[in-house]
Amino acid sequence: MRTLRLTLAYDGTRYSGWQSQPGRLTVQGELEKALARITREDIHVVGSGRTDAGVHALGQVASFSTEATLEPTTFQRALNGYLPHDIAVLDVQEAAPRFHAIADALWKTYRYLIHDGPVRDVFRRTYCWQYKCSLDADAMHRAAQALVGTHDFRSFESQWPTRSSSVRTVRDISVRRGHEGCEHTIALEVTADGFLYNMVRTITGTLVEVGRGARDENWPAEVVRAGERRAAGMTAPPRGLYLVGVEY
Amino acid sequence: MRTLRLTLAYDGTRYSGWQSQPGRLTVQGELEKALARITREDIHVVGSGRTDAGVHALGQVASFSTEATLEPTTFQRALNGYLPHDIAVLDVQEAAPRFHAIADALWKTYRYLIHDGPVRDVFRRTYCWQYKCSLDADAMHRAAQALVGTHDFRSFESQWPTRSSSVRTVRDISVRRGHEGCEHTIALEVTADGFLYNMVRTITGTLVEVGRGARDENWPAEVVRAGERRAAGMTAPPRGLYLVGVEY
Repeated sequence: MRTLRLTLAYDGTRYSGWQSQPGRLTVQGELEKALARITREDIHVVGSGRTDAGVHALGQVASFSTEATLEPTTFQRALNGYLPHDIAVLDVQEAAPRFHAIADALWKTYRYLIHDGPVRDVFRRTYCWQYKCSLDADAMHRAAQALVGTHDFRSFESQWPTRSSSVRTVRDISVRRGHEGCEHTIALEVTADGFLYNMVRTITGTLVEVGRGARDENWPAEVVRAGERRAAGMTAPPRGLYLVGVEY
Repeated sequence: MRTLRLTLAYDGTRYSGWQSQPGRLTVQGELEKALARITREDIHVVGSGRTDAGVHALGQVASFSTEATLEPTTFQRALNGYLPHDIAVLDVQEAAPRFHAIADALWKTYRYLIHDGPVRDVFRRTYCWQYKCSLDADAMHRAAQALVGTHDFRSFESQWPTRSSSVRTVRDISVRRGHEGCEHTIALEVTADGFLYNMVRTITGTLVEVGRGARDENWPAEVVRAGERRAAGMTAPPRGLYLVGVEY
Protein backbone atom coordinates (compact mmCIF):
# COMPACT_ATOMS: atom_id res chain seq x y z
CA MET A 1 0.00 0.00 0.00
CA ARG A 2 1.37 3.44 -0.92
CA THR A 3 0.00 6.97 -0.60
CA LEU A 4 -0.10 9.41 -3.50
CA ARG A 5 -0.66 13.13 -3.43
CA LEU A 6 -2.45 14.87 -6.31
CA THR A 7 -2.58 18.54 -7.24
CA LEU A 8 -5.72 19.40 -9.17
CA ALA A 9 -7.26 22.29 -11.07
CA TYR A 10 -10.96 22.39 -11.82
CA ASP A 11 -13.58 24.68 -13.23
CA GLY A 12 -16.30 24.30 -10.57
CA THR A 13 -19.14 25.67 -12.72
CA ARG A 14 -20.80 22.31 -13.46
CA TYR A 15 -20.15 20.72 -10.08
CA SER A 16 -22.12 20.48 -6.84
CA GLY A 17 -18.80 21.18 -5.10
CA TRP A 18 -15.88 18.98 -4.16
CA GLN A 19 -17.48 16.45 -1.86
CA SER A 20 -19.17 13.27 -3.11
CA GLN A 21 -22.95 13.30 -2.73
CA PRO A 22 -25.32 10.64 -4.04
CA GLY A 23 -26.86 11.61 -7.39
CA ARG A 24 -24.80 14.79 -7.71
CA LEU A 25 -21.90 15.62 -10.01
CA THR A 26 -18.91 16.33 -7.75
CA VAL A 27 -15.17 16.64 -8.27
CA GLN A 28 -14.34 14.01 -5.65
CA GLY A 29 -16.89 11.68 -7.25
CA GLU A 30 -15.38 12.09 -10.74
CA LEU A 31 -11.89 11.56 -9.35
CA GLU A 32 -12.87 8.40 -7.49
CA LYS A 33 -14.60 7.08 -10.61
CA ALA A 34 -11.46 7.68 -12.72
CA LEU A 35 -9.26 6.04 -10.05
CA ALA A 36 -11.56 3.00 -9.95
CA ARG A 37 -11.21 2.60 -13.72
CA ILE A 38 -7.42 2.81 -13.52
CA THR A 39 -6.80 0.68 -10.42
CA ARG A 40 -9.91 -1.58 -10.20
CA GLU A 41 -9.87 -0.65 -6.48
CA ASP A 42 -12.52 1.18 -4.48
CA ILE A 43 -10.46 4.26 -3.64
CA HIS A 44 -11.44 6.97 -1.21
CA VAL A 45 -9.85 10.34 -1.94
CA VAL A 46 -9.22 12.90 0.82
CA GLY A 47 -9.22 16.54 -0.32
CA SER A 48 -7.51 19.37 1.57
CA GLY A 49 -10.97 20.81 2.10
CA ARG A 50 -14.36 21.01 0.48
CA THR A 51 -15.06 23.60 -2.12
CA ASP A 52 -18.70 24.64 -2.59
CA ALA A 53 -20.80 24.35 -5.73
CA GLY A 54 -19.45 26.70 -8.41
CA VAL A 55 -16.11 27.30 -6.64
CA HIS A 56 -12.96 26.66 -8.68
CA ALA A 57 -9.49 25.32 -7.87
CA LEU A 58 -6.07 26.09 -9.28
CA GLY A 59 -4.22 23.87 -6.80
CA GLN A 60 -6.49 21.64 -4.73
CA VAL A 61 -4.52 18.86 -3.04
CA ALA A 62 -5.89 15.36 -2.50
CA SER A 63 -4.41 12.12 -1.23
CA PHE A 64 -5.33 8.45 -1.52
CA SER A 65 -3.86 5.02 -0.86
CA THR A 66 -3.58 2.29 -3.46
CA GLU A 67 -2.03 -1.11 -4.20
CA ALA A 68 -1.37 -0.02 -7.80
CA THR A 69 2.29 0.13 -8.76
CA LEU A 70 2.00 2.63 -11.63
CA GLU A 71 4.57 5.43 -11.80
CA PRO A 72 3.23 8.82 -10.63
CA THR A 73 3.52 10.31 -14.15
CA THR A 74 1.62 7.33 -15.61
CA PHE A 75 -1.10 7.89 -12.99
CA GLN A 76 -1.27 11.55 -14.02
CA ARG A 77 -1.60 10.78 -17.73
CA ALA A 78 -4.20 8.07 -17.11
CA LEU A 79 -6.25 10.32 -14.81
CA ASN A 80 -6.17 13.19 -17.30
CA GLY A 81 -7.34 10.75 -19.95
CA TYR A 82 -10.36 9.58 -17.92
CA LEU A 83 -11.35 12.83 -16.18
CA PRO A 84 -13.78 15.30 -17.76
CA HIS A 85 -12.14 18.29 -19.47
CA ASP A 86 -12.98 20.68 -16.63
CA ILE A 87 -10.81 18.76 -14.14
CA ALA A 88 -7.02 18.41 -14.64
CA VAL A 89 -4.39 16.65 -12.57
CA LEU A 90 -1.39 19.00 -12.49
CA ASP A 91 0.92 16.80 -10.45
CA VAL A 92 1.15 13.35 -8.80
CA GLN A 93 3.78 12.64 -6.13
CA GLU A 94 4.60 9.79 -3.77
CA ALA A 95 3.66 10.88 -0.25
CA ALA A 96 4.60 9.64 3.19
CA PRO A 97 2.30 6.69 4.06
CA ARG A 98 0.56 8.70 6.77
CA PHE A 99 0.17 11.89 4.67
CA HIS A 100 -3.33 13.30 5.09
CA ALA A 101 -4.44 16.16 2.83
CA ILE A 102 -6.68 17.78 5.48
CA ALA A 103 -4.85 17.09 8.72
CA ASP A 104 -1.39 18.02 7.43
CA ALA A 105 -2.36 21.27 5.69
CA LEU A 106 -0.54 24.24 7.23
CA TRP A 107 -1.66 27.15 5.07
CA LYS A 108 -4.23 27.55 2.34
CA THR A 109 -4.55 30.35 -0.17
CA TYR A 110 -7.80 31.46 -1.80
CA ARG A 111 -8.31 34.07 -4.49
CA TYR A 112 -11.51 35.95 -5.25
CA LEU A 113 -11.94 37.73 -8.61
CA ILE A 114 -14.23 40.71 -9.09
CA HIS A 115 -14.87 42.36 -12.45
CA ASP A 116 -16.02 45.97 -12.07
CA GLY A 117 -15.94 47.14 -15.71
CA PRO A 118 -18.94 49.05 -17.09
CA VAL A 119 -19.88 46.11 -19.37
CA ARG A 120 -19.80 42.43 -18.36
CA ASP A 121 -16.84 40.34 -19.52
CA VAL A 122 -18.51 37.58 -21.55
CA PHE A 123 -15.50 35.27 -21.22
CA ARG A 124 -15.29 35.46 -17.43
CA ARG A 125 -18.95 35.34 -16.53
CA THR A 126 -18.62 32.11 -14.53
CA TYR A 127 -15.10 32.96 -13.35
CA CYS A 128 -15.63 36.23 -11.48
CA TRP A 129 -18.21 38.34 -9.69
CA GLN A 130 -19.47 40.98 -12.10
CA TYR A 131 -19.85 43.98 -9.80
CA LYS A 132 -22.30 46.74 -10.62
CA CYS A 133 -20.08 49.74 -9.89
CA SER A 134 -16.44 50.71 -9.90
CA LEU A 135 -14.48 49.81 -6.74
CA ASP A 136 -11.51 51.43 -5.00
CA ALA A 137 -9.14 48.46 -4.83
CA ASP A 138 -6.48 50.39 -2.90
CA ALA A 139 -8.95 51.28 -0.15
CA MET A 140 -10.03 47.62 -0.01
CA HIS A 141 -6.40 46.56 0.32
CA ARG A 142 -5.73 48.96 3.19
CA ALA A 143 -8.94 48.00 4.97
CA ALA A 144 -8.17 44.29 4.60
CA GLN A 145 -4.93 44.57 6.58
CA ALA A 146 -7.02 44.63 9.81
CA LEU A 147 -7.71 40.92 9.21
CA VAL A 148 -4.04 39.87 9.29
CA GLY A 149 -3.11 37.97 12.45
CA THR A 150 -4.95 35.64 14.79
CA HIS A 151 -8.58 36.61 15.34
CA ASP A 152 -11.95 35.12 16.08
CA PHE A 153 -13.47 35.29 12.58
CA ARG A 154 -17.03 34.29 13.53
CA SER A 155 -18.36 37.49 11.93
CA PHE A 156 -17.32 36.02 8.58
CA GLU A 157 -18.79 32.56 9.12
CA SER A 158 -22.12 31.53 7.64
CA GLN A 159 -25.17 31.05 9.80
CA TRP A 160 -24.50 27.40 10.57
CA PRO A 161 -21.10 27.13 12.19
CA THR A 162 -19.82 23.57 12.37
CA ARG A 163 -16.38 24.07 13.86
CA SER A 164 -15.48 24.02 17.52
CA SER A 165 -13.42 27.19 17.29
CA SER A 166 -13.71 30.15 14.96
CA VAL A 167 -10.21 31.47 15.69
CA ARG A 168 -7.97 31.44 12.63
CA THR A 169 -4.68 33.05 11.64
CA VAL A 170 -4.52 35.09 8.45
CA ARG A 171 -0.92 35.31 7.23
CA ASP A 172 -1.48 37.62 4.25
CA ILE A 173 -4.32 39.38 2.52
CA SER A 174 -4.06 41.60 -0.54
CA VAL A 175 -6.43 43.31 -2.96
CA ARG A 176 -4.96 44.33 -6.34
CA ARG A 177 -6.42 45.66 -9.56
CA GLY A 178 -5.15 44.43 -12.94
CA HIS A 179 -5.34 40.66 -12.62
CA GLU A 180 -3.96 38.96 -15.76
CA GLY A 181 -3.48 42.37 -17.35
CA CYS A 182 -7.19 43.27 -17.19
CA GLU A 183 -7.73 46.74 -15.71
CA HIS A 184 -11.28 45.85 -14.66
CA THR A 185 -10.38 42.71 -12.73
CA ILE A 186 -9.61 42.92 -9.02
CA ALA A 187 -8.00 39.96 -7.24
CA LEU A 188 -8.35 39.48 -3.51
CA GLU A 189 -5.95 36.89 -2.14
CA VAL A 190 -5.91 35.47 1.40
CA THR A 191 -3.58 32.95 3.03
CA ALA A 192 -4.64 31.49 6.38
CA ASP A 193 -4.14 28.37 8.48
CA GLY A 194 -7.78 27.50 7.93
CA PHE A 195 -11.04 29.02 6.75
CA LEU A 196 -14.52 29.04 8.24
CA TYR A 197 -17.53 28.24 6.07
CA ASN A 198 -17.95 31.01 3.43
CA MET A 199 -15.20 33.05 5.10
CA VAL A 200 -13.48 34.31 1.94
CA ARG A 201 -16.79 35.09 0.26
CA THR A 202 -17.94 37.06 3.31
CA ILE A 203 -14.62 38.92 3.58
CA THR A 204 -15.08 39.82 -0.10
CA GLY A 205 -18.65 41.01 0.44
CA THR A 206 -17.42 43.13 3.37
CA LEU A 207 -14.44 44.70 1.58
CA VAL A 208 -16.66 45.56 -1.38
CA GLU A 209 -18.64 47.85 0.94
CA VAL A 210 -15.42 49.77 1.53
CA GLY A 211 -14.50 49.63 -2.18
CA ARG A 212 -17.78 51.21 -3.28
CA GLY A 213 -17.51 53.90 -0.60
CA ALA A 214 -20.49 52.79 1.53
CA ARG A 215 -18.22 52.10 4.53
CA ASP A 216 -14.91 53.58 5.61
CA GLU A 217 -11.60 51.77 5.77
CA ASN A 218 -11.84 51.06 9.50
CA TRP A 219 -15.08 49.16 9.15
CA PRO A 220 -13.67 45.62 8.57
CA ALA A 221 -11.77 45.93 11.89
CA GLU A 222 -15.09 46.77 13.59
CA VAL A 223 -16.75 43.79 11.90
CA VAL A 224 -14.12 41.44 13.38
CA ARG A 225 -14.66 42.93 16.86
CA ALA A 226 -18.45 42.66 16.60
CA GLY A 227 -18.21 38.85 16.53
CA GLU A 228 -21.51 38.24 14.74
CA ARG A 229 -22.35 37.43 11.14
CA ARG A 230 -24.88 40.21 10.71
CA ALA A 231 -22.14 42.79 11.32
CA ALA A 232 -20.41 41.82 8.05
CA GLY A 233 -21.27 42.39 4.38
CA MET A 234 -23.00 40.00 2.00
CA THR A 235 -21.63 36.61 0.97
CA ALA A 236 -20.12 37.09 -2.50
CA PRO A 237 -21.23 34.51 -5.12
CA PRO A 238 -19.22 31.27 -5.47
CA ARG A 239 -18.20 31.74 -9.12
CA GLY A 240 -15.42 34.25 -8.26
CA LEU A 241 -13.69 31.98 -5.72
CA TYR A 242 -10.56 29.85 -6.37
CA LEU A 243 -8.61 27.56 -4.06
CA VAL A 244 -5.13 28.58 -5.21
CA GLY A 245 -2.94 26.22 -3.21
CA VAL A 246 -2.19 24.37 0.00
CA GLU A 247 1.10 24.39 1.91
CA TYR A 248 2.17 21.35 3.95
CA MET B 1 -34.55 56.76 -39.80
CA ARG B 2 -31.06 56.70 -38.32
CA THR B 3 -28.18 54.20 -38.44
CA LEU B 4 -26.43 52.92 -35.34
CA ARG B 5 -23.15 51.08 -35.09
CA LEU B 6 -22.63 48.50 -32.35
CA THR B 7 -19.41 46.98 -31.05
CA LEU B 8 -19.99 43.53 -29.54
CA ALA B 9 -18.14 40.87 -27.62
CA TYR B 10 -19.40 37.31 -27.45
CA ASP B 11 -18.42 33.91 -26.24
CA GLY B 12 -19.26 31.82 -29.31
CA THR B 13 -19.29 28.46 -27.50
CA ARG B 14 -23.09 28.05 -27.41
CA TYR B 15 -23.79 29.59 -30.81
CA SER B 16 -24.17 28.19 -34.33
CA GLY B 17 -22.13 31.21 -35.43
CA TRP B 18 -23.04 34.82 -36.14
CA GLN B 19 -25.54 34.47 -38.94
CA SER B 20 -29.27 33.90 -38.32
CA GLN B 21 -30.46 30.43 -39.28
CA PRO B 22 -33.94 29.04 -38.67
CA GLY B 23 -34.09 26.89 -35.54
CA ARG B 24 -30.49 27.66 -34.53
CA LEU B 25 -29.12 29.80 -31.73
CA THR B 26 -27.08 32.56 -33.40
CA VAL B 27 -25.60 35.85 -32.25
CA GLN B 28 -27.34 37.84 -34.98
CA GLY B 29 -30.62 36.15 -34.08
CA GLU B 30 -30.28 37.02 -30.37
CA LEU B 31 -29.37 40.60 -31.24
CA GLU B 32 -32.34 41.03 -33.58
CA LYS B 33 -34.66 39.55 -30.93
CA ALA B 34 -33.36 42.00 -28.31
CA LEU B 35 -33.71 44.93 -30.74
CA ALA B 36 -37.27 43.89 -31.55
CA ARG B 37 -38.15 43.95 -27.85
CA ILE B 38 -36.64 47.42 -27.42
CA THR B 39 -37.89 49.10 -30.60
CA ARG B 40 -41.01 47.05 -31.55
CA GLU B 41 -39.53 47.15 -35.08
CA ASP B 42 -38.43 44.25 -37.28
CA ILE B 43 -34.75 45.15 -37.43
CA HIS B 44 -32.18 43.54 -39.67
CA VAL B 45 -28.63 43.73 -38.33
CA VAL B 46 -25.60 43.70 -40.63
CA GLY B 47 -22.41 42.29 -39.11
CA SER B 48 -18.90 43.06 -40.40
CA GLY B 49 -18.65 39.39 -41.27
CA ARG B 50 -19.87 35.98 -40.22
CA THR B 51 -18.11 34.14 -37.48
CA ASP B 52 -18.46 30.34 -37.48
CA ALA B 53 -19.94 28.14 -34.76
CA GLY B 54 -17.75 28.29 -31.66
CA VAL B 55 -15.77 31.35 -32.80
CA HIS B 56 -15.63 34.28 -30.36
CA ALA B 57 -15.58 38.06 -30.76
CA LEU B 58 -13.92 40.81 -28.76
CA GLY B 59 -14.97 43.58 -31.12
CA GLN B 60 -17.46 42.50 -33.77
CA VAL B 61 -19.10 45.51 -35.43
CA ALA B 62 -22.72 45.55 -36.57
CA SER B 63 -25.02 48.21 -37.95
CA PHE B 64 -28.78 48.64 -38.19
CA SER B 65 -31.34 51.30 -39.00
CA THR B 66 -34.19 52.25 -36.72
CA GLU B 67 -36.93 54.83 -36.14
CA ALA B 68 -36.28 54.65 -32.38
CA THR B 69 -35.05 57.89 -30.84
CA LEU B 70 -33.29 56.42 -27.79
CA GLU B 71 -29.86 57.79 -26.91
CA PRO B 72 -26.99 55.44 -27.88
CA THR B 73 -26.08 54.81 -24.23
CA THR B 74 -29.71 53.95 -23.44
CA PHE B 75 -29.71 51.52 -26.37
CA GLN B 76 -26.53 49.94 -24.98
CA ARG B 77 -27.97 49.51 -21.48
CA ALA B 78 -31.25 48.12 -22.81
CA LEU B 79 -29.49 45.67 -25.13
CA ASN B 80 -27.19 44.44 -22.35
CA GLY B 81 -30.29 43.95 -20.22
CA TYR B 82 -32.07 41.79 -22.82
CA LEU B 83 -29.12 39.90 -24.31
CA PRO B 84 -27.89 36.58 -22.86
CA HIS B 85 -24.83 36.85 -20.61
CA ASP B 86 -22.47 35.51 -23.25
CA ILE B 87 -23.11 38.50 -25.55
CA ALA B 88 -22.23 42.06 -24.50
CA VAL B 89 -22.64 45.38 -26.30
CA LEU B 90 -19.43 47.33 -25.65
CA ASP B 91 -20.35 50.49 -27.53
CA VAL B 92 -23.20 52.11 -29.50
CA GLN B 93 -22.54 55.10 -31.78
CA GLU B 94 -24.52 57.13 -34.28
CA ALA B 95 -23.26 56.26 -37.78
CA ALA B 96 -23.56 57.94 -41.15
CA PRO B 97 -26.95 56.94 -42.67
CA ARG B 98 -25.25 54.91 -45.38
CA PHE B 99 -22.75 53.19 -43.05
CA HIS B 100 -22.57 49.49 -43.84
CA ALA B 101 -20.66 47.18 -41.48
CA ILE B 102 -19.48 44.83 -44.26
CA ALA B 103 -18.96 47.12 -47.23
CA ASP B 104 -17.14 49.85 -45.31
CA ALA B 105 -14.73 47.59 -43.38
CA LEU B 106 -11.11 48.41 -44.29
CA TRP B 107 -9.15 46.08 -42.00
CA LYS B 108 -10.09 43.28 -39.69
CA THR B 109 -8.00 41.69 -36.96
CA TYR B 110 -8.34 38.11 -35.77
CA ARG B 111 -6.51 36.40 -32.91
CA TYR B 112 -5.98 32.68 -32.46
CA LEU B 113 -5.01 31.28 -29.03
CA ILE B 114 -3.09 28.03 -28.59
CA HIS B 115 -2.32 26.48 -25.20
CA ASP B 116 0.69 24.16 -25.36
CA GLY B 117 1.23 23.42 -21.65
CA PRO B 118 1.76 19.81 -20.57
CA VAL B 119 -1.65 19.73 -18.82
CA ARG B 120 -4.87 21.23 -20.21
CA ASP B 121 -6.00 24.60 -18.83
CA VAL B 122 -9.46 23.81 -17.43
CA PHE B 123 -10.53 27.47 -17.52
CA ARG B 124 -9.67 28.02 -21.20
CA ARG B 125 -10.86 24.73 -22.66
CA THR B 126 -13.44 26.42 -24.93
CA TYR B 127 -11.26 29.52 -25.42
CA CYS B 128 -8.11 28.07 -26.96
CA TRP B 129 -6.75 25.13 -28.91
CA GLN B 130 -5.10 22.74 -26.45
CA TYR B 131 -2.09 21.58 -28.43
CA LYS B 132 -0.49 18.21 -27.70
CA CYS B 133 3.16 19.28 -27.71
CA SER B 134 5.29 22.30 -27.04
CA LEU B 135 5.63 24.79 -29.91
CA ASP B 136 8.41 27.18 -30.95
CA ALA B 137 6.49 30.45 -31.09
CA ASP B 138 9.48 32.44 -32.35
CA ALA B 139 9.90 30.12 -35.34
CA MET B 140 6.17 30.45 -36.06
CA HIS B 141 6.48 34.24 -35.92
CA ARG B 142 9.38 34.32 -38.37
CA ALA B 143 7.69 31.86 -40.73
CA ALA B 144 4.45 33.86 -40.64
CA GLN B 145 6.12 36.99 -42.05
CA ALA B 146 6.01 35.39 -45.54
CA LEU B 147 2.23 35.99 -45.49
CA VAL B 148 2.52 39.78 -45.10
CA GLY B 149 1.58 41.67 -48.25
CA THR B 150 -0.81 41.06 -51.12
CA HIS B 151 -1.07 37.41 -52.13
CA ASP B 152 -3.48 34.89 -53.53
CA PHE B 153 -4.40 33.04 -50.32
CA ARG B 154 -6.39 30.21 -51.93
CA SER B 155 -4.12 27.65 -50.21
CA PHE B 156 -5.68 28.78 -46.92
CA GLU B 157 -9.29 28.71 -48.08
CA SER B 158 -11.62 25.82 -47.28
CA GLN B 159 -12.71 23.36 -49.94
CA TRP B 160 -15.72 25.35 -51.08
CA PRO B 161 -14.56 28.81 -52.13
CA THR B 162 -17.42 31.26 -52.48
CA ARG B 163 -15.55 34.43 -53.34
CA SER B 164 -14.71 35.69 -56.79
CA SER B 165 -11.11 36.48 -55.85
CA SER B 166 -8.85 34.91 -53.28
CA VAL B 167 -6.34 37.79 -53.30
CA ARG B 168 -6.09 39.54 -49.94
CA THR B 169 -3.65 41.90 -48.26
CA VAL B 170 -2.21 40.96 -44.88
CA ARG B 171 -0.97 44.10 -43.10
CA ASP B 172 0.49 42.43 -39.99
CA ILE B 173 0.89 38.97 -38.56
CA SER B 174 2.53 38.08 -35.27
CA VAL B 175 2.92 35.01 -33.06
CA ARG B 176 3.80 35.64 -29.42
CA ARG B 177 4.05 33.45 -26.34
CA GLY B 178 2.82 34.70 -22.96
CA HIS B 179 -0.71 35.91 -23.72
CA GLU B 180 -2.32 37.45 -20.61
CA GLY B 181 0.75 36.50 -18.59
CA CYS B 182 0.35 32.76 -19.24
CA GLU B 183 3.64 31.18 -20.39
CA HIS B 184 1.77 28.32 -22.07
CA THR B 185 -0.53 30.50 -24.18
CA ILE B 186 0.53 31.54 -27.67
CA ALA B 187 -1.39 34.27 -29.50
CA LEU B 188 -1.35 34.52 -33.27
CA GLU B 189 -2.73 37.85 -34.52
CA VAL B 190 -3.47 38.77 -38.16
CA THR B 191 -4.74 42.00 -39.67
CA ALA B 192 -5.93 41.91 -43.27
CA ASP B 193 -8.30 43.72 -45.61
CA GLY B 194 -10.44 40.60 -45.72
CA PHE B 195 -10.33 36.91 -44.93
CA LEU B 196 -11.24 33.84 -46.94
CA TYR B 197 -13.34 31.07 -45.40
CA ASN B 198 -11.34 29.41 -42.56
CA MET B 199 -8.25 31.42 -43.54
CA VAL B 200 -7.02 32.23 -40.01
CA ARG B 201 -7.69 28.70 -38.80
CA THR B 202 -5.76 27.25 -41.75
CA ILE B 203 -2.87 29.70 -41.29
CA THR B 204 -2.77 28.55 -37.64
CA GLY B 205 -2.79 24.87 -38.60
CA THR B 206 0.04 25.58 -41.04
CA LEU B 207 2.23 27.59 -38.64
CA VAL B 208 1.80 24.88 -35.99
CA GLU B 209 3.63 22.48 -38.34
CA VAL B 210 6.58 24.86 -38.17
CA GLY B 211 6.18 25.33 -34.42
CA ARG B 212 6.36 21.62 -33.68
CA GLY B 213 9.37 21.21 -35.98
CA ALA B 214 7.67 19.07 -38.65
CA ARG B 215 8.30 21.73 -41.32
CA ASP B 216 10.94 24.41 -41.68
CA GLU B 217 10.42 28.16 -41.52
CA ASN B 218 10.27 28.58 -45.31
CA TRP B 219 7.36 26.22 -45.69
CA PRO B 220 4.47 28.73 -45.28
CA ALA B 221 5.92 30.75 -48.21
CA GLU B 222 5.85 27.56 -50.30
CA VAL B 223 2.26 26.90 -49.22
CA VAL B 224 1.22 30.33 -50.53
CA ARG B 225 2.94 29.69 -53.85
CA ALA B 226 1.38 26.23 -54.22
CA GLY B 227 -2.07 27.80 -54.57
CA GLU B 228 -4.06 24.78 -53.42
CA ARG B 229 -5.66 23.90 -50.11
CA ARG B 230 -4.02 20.51 -49.75
CA ALA B 231 -0.60 22.19 -49.64
CA ALA B 232 -1.43 23.78 -46.27
CA GLY B 233 -1.77 22.38 -42.73
CA MET B 234 -4.96 21.38 -40.94
CA THR B 235 -7.79 23.75 -40.09
CA ALA B 236 -7.39 24.60 -36.39
CA PRO B 237 -10.58 24.20 -34.29
CA PRO B 238 -12.95 27.18 -33.99
CA ARG B 239 -12.77 27.56 -30.19
CA GLY B 240 -9.35 29.33 -30.31
CA LEU B 241 -10.47 32.03 -32.77
CA TYR B 242 -11.49 35.61 -31.89
CA LEU B 243 -12.58 38.50 -34.10
CA VAL B 244 -10.63 41.24 -32.31
CA GLY B 245 -11.78 44.33 -34.19
CA VAL B 246 -12.71 46.03 -37.42
CA GLU B 247 -11.28 49.28 -38.76
CA TYR B 248 -13.40 51.58 -40.97
